[in-house]
Amino acid sequence: IMSKGTVVLAYSGGLDTSCILVWLKEQGYDVIAYLANIGQDEDFEAARKKAESLGAKKIFIEDLRKEFVEDFIWPSVQANAVYEDRYLMGTAIARPCIARRQVEIARKEGAQFVSHGATGKGNDQIRFELTCYALYPEVKIIAPWRIPEFYNRFRGRKDLMEYAQKFGIPVPVTPKAPWSMDANLMHISYESGILENPKSQAPPDLYLMTKNPADSPNEPDVLEMEFRNGVPIKVTNETNGISKNAPLEIFSYLNEIGGKHGVGRIDIVENRFIGMKSRGIYETPGGTILLKAHLDIETFTMDKEVRRIKQGLGIKFSELVYNGFWYSPECDFVRHCIAKSQENVEGKVQLSVFKGQVYILGRESPKSLYNEELVSMDVQGDYDPCDASGFIRINAVRLREHHRLQGFSGKKQ
Amino acid sequence: IMSKGTVVLAYSGGLDTSCILVWLKEQGYDVIAYLANIGQDEDFEAARKKAESLGAKKIFIEDLRKEFVEDFIWPSVQANAVYEDRYLMGTAIARPCIARRQVEIARKEGAQFVSHGATGKGNDQIRFELTCYALYPEVKIIAPWRIPEFYNRFRGRKDLMEYAQKFGIPVPVTPKAPWSMDANLMHISYESGILENPKSQAPPDLYLMTKNPADSPNEPDVLEMEFRNGVPIKVTNETNGISKNAPLEIFSYLNEIGGKHGVGRIDIVENRFIGMKSRGIYETPGGTILLKAHLDIETFTMDKEVRRIKQGLGIKFSELVYNGFWYSPECDFVRHCIAKSQENVEGKVQLSVFKGQVYILGRESPKSLYNEELVSMDVQGDYDPCDASGFIRINAVRLREHHRLQGFSGKKQ
Amino acid sequence: IMSKGTVVLAYSGGLDTSCILVWLKEQGYDVIAYLANIGQDEDFEAARKKAESLGAKKIFIEDLRKEFVEDFIWPSVQANAVYEDRYLMGTAIARPCIARRQVEIARKEGAQFVSHGATGKGNDQIRFELTCYALYPEVKIIAPWRIPEFYNRFRGRKDLMEYAQKFGIPVPVTPKAPWSMDANLMHISYESGILENPKSQAPPDLYLMTKNPADSPNEPDVLEMEFRNGVPIKVTNETNGISKNAPLEIFSYLNEIGGKHGVGRIDIVENRFIGMKSRGIYETPGGTILLKAHLDIETFTMDKEVRRIKQGLGIKFSELVYNGFWYSPECDFVRHCIAKSQENVEGKVQLSVFKGQVYILGRESPKSLYNEELVSMDVQGDYDPCDASGFIRINAVRLREHHRLQGFSGKKQ
Amino acid sequence: IMSKGTVVLAYSGGLDTSCILVWLKEQGYDVIAYLANIGQDEDFEAARKKAESLGAKKIFIEDLRKEFVEDFIWPSVQANAVYEDRYLMGTAIARPCIARRQVEIARKEGAQFVSHGATGKGNDQIRFELTCYALYPEVKIIAPWRIPEFYNRFRGRKDLMEYAQKFGIPVPVTPKAPWSMDANLMHISYESGILENPKSQAPPDLYLMTKNPADSPNEPDVLEMEFRNGVPIKVTNETNGISKNAPLEIFSYLNEIGGKHGVGRIDIVENRFIGMKSRGIYETPGGTILLKAHLDIETFTMDKEVRRIKQGLGIKFSELVYNGFWYSPECDFVRHCIAKSQENVEGKVQLSVFKGQVYILGRESPKSLYNEELVSMDVQGDYDPCDASGFIRINAVRLREHHRLQGFSGKKQ
Repeated sequence: IMSKGTVVLAYSGGLDTSCILVWLKEQGYDVIAYLANIGQDEDFEAARKKAESLGAKKIFIEDLRKEFVEDFIWPSVQANAVYEDRYLMGTAIARPCIARRQVEIARKEGAQFVSHGATGKGNDQIRFELTCYALYPEVKIIAPWRIPEFYNRFRGRKDLMEYAQKFGIPVPVTPKAPWSMDANLMHISYESGILENPKSQAPPDLYLMTKNPADSPNEPDVLEMEFRNGVPIKVTNETNGISKNAPLEIFSYLNEIGGKHGVGRIDIVENRFIGMKSRGIYETPGGTILLKAHLDIETFTMDKEVRRIKQGLGIKFSELVYNGFWYSPECDFVRHCIAKSQENVEGKVQLSVFKGQVYILGRESPKSLYNEELVSMDVQGDYDPCDASGFIRINAVRLREHHRLQGFSGKKQ
Repeated sequence: IMSKGTVVLAYSGGLDTSCILVWLKEQGYDVIAYLANIGQDEDFEAARKKAESLGAKKIFIEDLRKEFVEDFIWPSVQANAVYEDRYLMGTAIARPCIARRQVEIARKEGAQFVSHGATGKGNDQIRFELTCYALYPEVKIIAPWRIPEFYNRFRGRKDLMEYAQKFGIPVPVTPKAPWSMDANLMHISYESGILENPKSQAPPDLYLMTKNPADSPNEPDVLEMEFRNGVPIKVTNETNGISKNAPLEIFSYLNEIGGKHGVGRIDIVENRFIGMKSRGIYETPGGTILLKAHLDIETFTMDKEVRRIKQGLGIKFSELVYNGFWYSPECDFVRHCIAKSQENVEGKVQLSVFKGQVYILGRESPKSLYNEELVSMDVQGDYDPCDASGFIRINAVRLREHHRLQGFSGKKQ
Repeated sequence: IMSKGTVVLAYSGGLDTSCILVWLKEQGYDVIAYLANIGQDEDFEAARKKAESLGAKKIFIEDLRKEFVEDFIWPSVQANAVYEDRYLMGTAIARPCIARRQVEIARKEGAQFVSHGATGKGNDQIRFELTCYALYPEVKIIAPWRIPEFYNRFRGRKDLMEYAQKFGIPVPVTPKAPWSMDANLMHISYESGILENPKSQAPPDLYLMTKNPADSPNEPDVLEMEFRNGVPIKVTNETNGISKNAPLEIFSYLNEIGGKHGVGRIDIVENRFIGMKSRGIYETPGGTILLKAHLDIETFTMDKEVRRIKQGLGIKFSELVYNGFWYSPECDFVRHCIAKSQENVEGKVQLSVFKGQVYILGRESPKSLYNEELVSMDVQGDYDPCDASGFIRINAVRLREHHRLQGFSGKKQ
Repeated sequence: IMSKGTVVLAYSGGLDTSCILVWLKEQGYDVIAYLANIGQDEDFEAARKKAESLGAKKIFIEDLRKEFVEDFIWPSVQANAVYEDRYLMGTAIARPCIARRQVEIARKEGAQFVSHGATGKGNDQIRFELTCYALYPEVKIIAPWRIPEFYNRFRGRKDLMEYAQKFGIPVPVTPKAPWSMDANLMHISYESGILENPKSQAPPDLYLMTKNPADSPNEPDVLEMEFRNGVPIKVTNETNGISKNAPLEIFSYLNEIGGKHGVGRIDIVENRFIGMKSRGIYETPGGTILLKAHLDIETFTMDKEVRRIKQGLGIKFSELVYNGFWYSPECDFVRHCIAKSQENVEGKVQLSVFKGQVYILGRESPKSLYNEELVSMDVQGDYDPCDASGFIRINAVRLREHHRLQGFSGKKQ
């Protein structure tokens, strides 16, 4: 039988993508299994063997952790990237990282097709596919959960299990949690299943990356984070002298400390790109520490009006990334502008991590615009307080005119 | 001797404004002492007696707590008002509240002058005076800390103490804290003195409104907050059944719970309107709980795109209020728009307060745009996953074109 | 044969929608022909007869001109709605007007389906359908130009002509212009065909609504436009005393004057919602006059900072409307905010229309914030020029600090 | 007598700054007269002699025309800089150009002071002085029109004339126009005097830079403008073959053509930084042509979403420049971002200039994202119209949900 061509499948090792792998073969494709290591807790060798046993033509297990931190987490730190005021986008920034390598493999292997196991209602399908189209415009995408032949055949987990048994796909021995989960170096997200009811509280044993603050240590860890160009270049634990200075090591250590103290748990309802509201629970320990520390050093070193403009760009960046446009002309542009704004974001922040919280304790910088003498209540310095009278009166010109007009119109304040 | 006219002085009962009161008399003014109760911890009767003894022509002690909550805190809650991503503006929203009454008194008493004890480097002078000019355009403002005759005479606390002794002004018996402080129902702020060094950590005994999270209870309080039109109309403590439903009572209760669990402490450097960076430490217990709860119910009930526009308006609102433009045509306009956006922000949020943190547990609303069936992974419903393919491909049109052009230009991704 | 149901077809009387009408019948639908009069030059009675002869079950010819002006053009005037700095959106605002009535008819007639002749690459399909879905969520939409059975059958005009002949559809006797065109009260747009080459100049005889400025009168018309709440309530031609004060009459008169003087011709490339660039030529005579006049009276009467916020909302409004979201929660919200901003936009503007241009000559308003005495170079009035020194020096605090830091960093200006 | 120090005075050669020169000497300063040639019509040698005769210690006449075009006009073209939708800011961009050289001279000559003749109610004082403070933070500024001793002595033109006669300052022989005027390469502005009444029409003989469109040629000039990096690199008159390719030559030629055809006249009310509304009349012939041409090539070559973000940055840029913040960290940042956005803004625009209007005729670019095949109505190409159905339906998810909720709330559309 003639092959329909080669598909690079983003393979997770789980039941869904295992069934997809077999199903794609059934449809006549050669399948290359591609498994990205972005820091999730996974037995990659077992996954390799499984993919082999299912008939993958070739298997790529790629350690993307370093580039995930440097190329995706770091720019997000510079941007103070938060979607809808709360979500740090651990999943959203992982998708372009995974898909970028996937299309590199597809190009290298001459595959015309890529495939993934993302569902048809979610954001991830969009993030995967926009990345693929942006970097490999002529690629063809097979999204089984949007193909009626597939989704009508696999209407529930039971169908997948039966299919697995029929085709010799090893099935999970532990029962599935009543929610779905996505893990990487940045965060773990939990959604669907019993969490779909937005009123139901998350069970306390759901969290895997962070300790319950009620059970976390009664002593804080005190860290000093050093930044240059808006990204951390060193973290030192002042409690025990431990110090890290490579990006992946820094981030992993912040995860460790944040996890130990229960930092970064949120329970939110968010707006998906496709216009639905969904409920998600996230834990982002290291990312939360970094956000707080970066906000502090940034405000300390950046001009006020640059900060205001950059804040708007950061919000834009977050929307773009959440919606899957990491690889787009506008996101390239925004990233460039944000990176430019970070040139003086340099210095050290002292902070304490304790019981789910991050407390900023102090900061210092050779590039700070903070001028202790200028602001001091005890020193007049170069500043003439009389100038403030003129400043205020000129700012009031407009307000007084407005009042005059209101008087004319007979309106009341 | 002819009086130069009548001044309404925003009087705090402290050393500075007591000296100003006497100094204004010395300059030939009749002085009306005006003391606003906006929830600070103060012996108002003692302050009245002190003002009388210093020769105030008249004394107004005004309980503004209810209007502070309803007219100033509530609109800020609707706006999710946060300045520079962190500061909840407890001082900034108190100033227009205080000054509004001050000019009402001035108008009623036929006073042409108002005066205050705010310094010449800070934001508060601006907030006070812009409010005064906006509501009483022809008013004349006496800001002693910007008048050379005054500030050259009182170069330090020692000069004030000597003046006080000379003019029989009672002097504080307890030594002054090595920082200055501003308290009201919303928050306490701490700044200057030893805090001017941005690296120096705040001493643990600084905080008066919140308990140290290390010493706070080991059991959370679980609250249910009910909102209508984007403001709380009821709070119930699910732990003990206590319930409040009047604005001032609700807010005071949230302060109590937040304070008990150490919620709302921040240490930041911020950008003043006059272009200096300053370091401030704030504790905003009830306001922090409210911000988190409101964000949750708002995102749950508000359309995604309305939310995006409203988020921008909220940032604008925060800048305006921080800079002293509460009473301005643009802030009126923004407040109106934000209030409009809150019409469906209605429902209940469950949350837990523990060790300095606020954890959202769940939410429900009769007005929610959340559609459990639509978003469910287990129900297809009205939603056709195939539509997503078209959605993604159309979104990719532009990205693929961009890639085509890049190919042309010989550029690299 | 059982009918598949009833379709309300947006019928234009032209070849395309006539073929669609017959084709829908062929597919088993009952067809209601709906023809909206939004000011295009059309023989509506001939169109009615044609639809009857083609077997339409029912025919609605609806005069929407008044509501088009009042409900769609007027809010756009308030918004200064311009897409991508140039396009006044005559087509974009007509689509929701047409589709609103279409779904009213569908609901009233119990039709489950609506249909239209818009192409699959354009914006209009989106504008029609988003309106339909927003106002009649359960409606089913038949878009033949996106149905393979249809578009594969009708690959070019020749196929339509053959089909027309076969089914007795009257065919146009005049040859089709080598571009397509969309006309209504607001504008005529020209695109595709020979205009698809963005370098080809539009032929001079293309324009139907405006005279060539080279041939337009050598004398201007001088108008006075009176506004209230940001919309015109009266226009008077000062040259001849002609005066109009009903919305449709005002707008039609402005079209007449603008057309006579060749006002409002543009040739642009724009970005469609679906991510393509397209070239369009537009003539919007009355709308162009109104935009200029409204901008003038608005700036004259609106506070500067309100104007700045409102300018942003106007740009947002334009994007939403261009993209088809007239009926959306966010567009409702933005329209509400913009309308609020217009409460004082009242007064008279004098302008001259000549050779393709609109020249503002002067303006007056009972609500203006313009204060001739305040601004006068010859009168000092209440304004103290010394205040400006303080204003400037305080604004410079930040700039001087920045310079200090740059010195530190050794950077050059 | 000891000199109080050296002042660099921005000298225009006119009556005001001649009096200021003498007055500064009277006050005990050494005065360096600095006269910038930014393209105004001026007898510079006569001005030099005059300054000499008035006792200037040194005289600098600086030809800044080239740097005005390259460093100030070009970035404004890239930004599509327009203040409040109409004003092209010819004065606002000249001020930092002039003041930059002024502080260079002051530094070089060891002068601690700079001075200018701008009034105390206007924008120019701010633009001059913010530039000076930004580039020479320790400079001292003498603004006579804000010094009571000066402005009380010179309450009107009569006082200046008397002073001039007393001190041998040559007085103008022609009567002053009943308005004031500011001219440079970019524009001439007219304001104050009889123009302070916003209803009074500008007299037809006011304009000096542009011909009255009624008297302009009856034949257009047709130009081709070539852009690279968002700035013009060549202009060719297709009518006569004349071609220019150096910045100053290009801009001067556009002024010539625009002036010949009466392009760029506006009569507006604008909001000054200090909160007043003022009426200004401007003629900006070359700048208006450039704005239209740049808008066209930019939209033709720039990605839609980049354009949207850049549009916001351009508005911000305009506000900053209008308010005098050309030299500020935020304006540096915005200029950098805008310049980045222009990297692909390259190609040729054909346009016709006629009777006060600029008509775009066509455009071409090697970097365009315009895809004639993709957008063609006659070619399906790679585009699948069925995708649009999914795109629309997904965009409608949110709108349909909103309608569902409205039904619940019993609200009406």
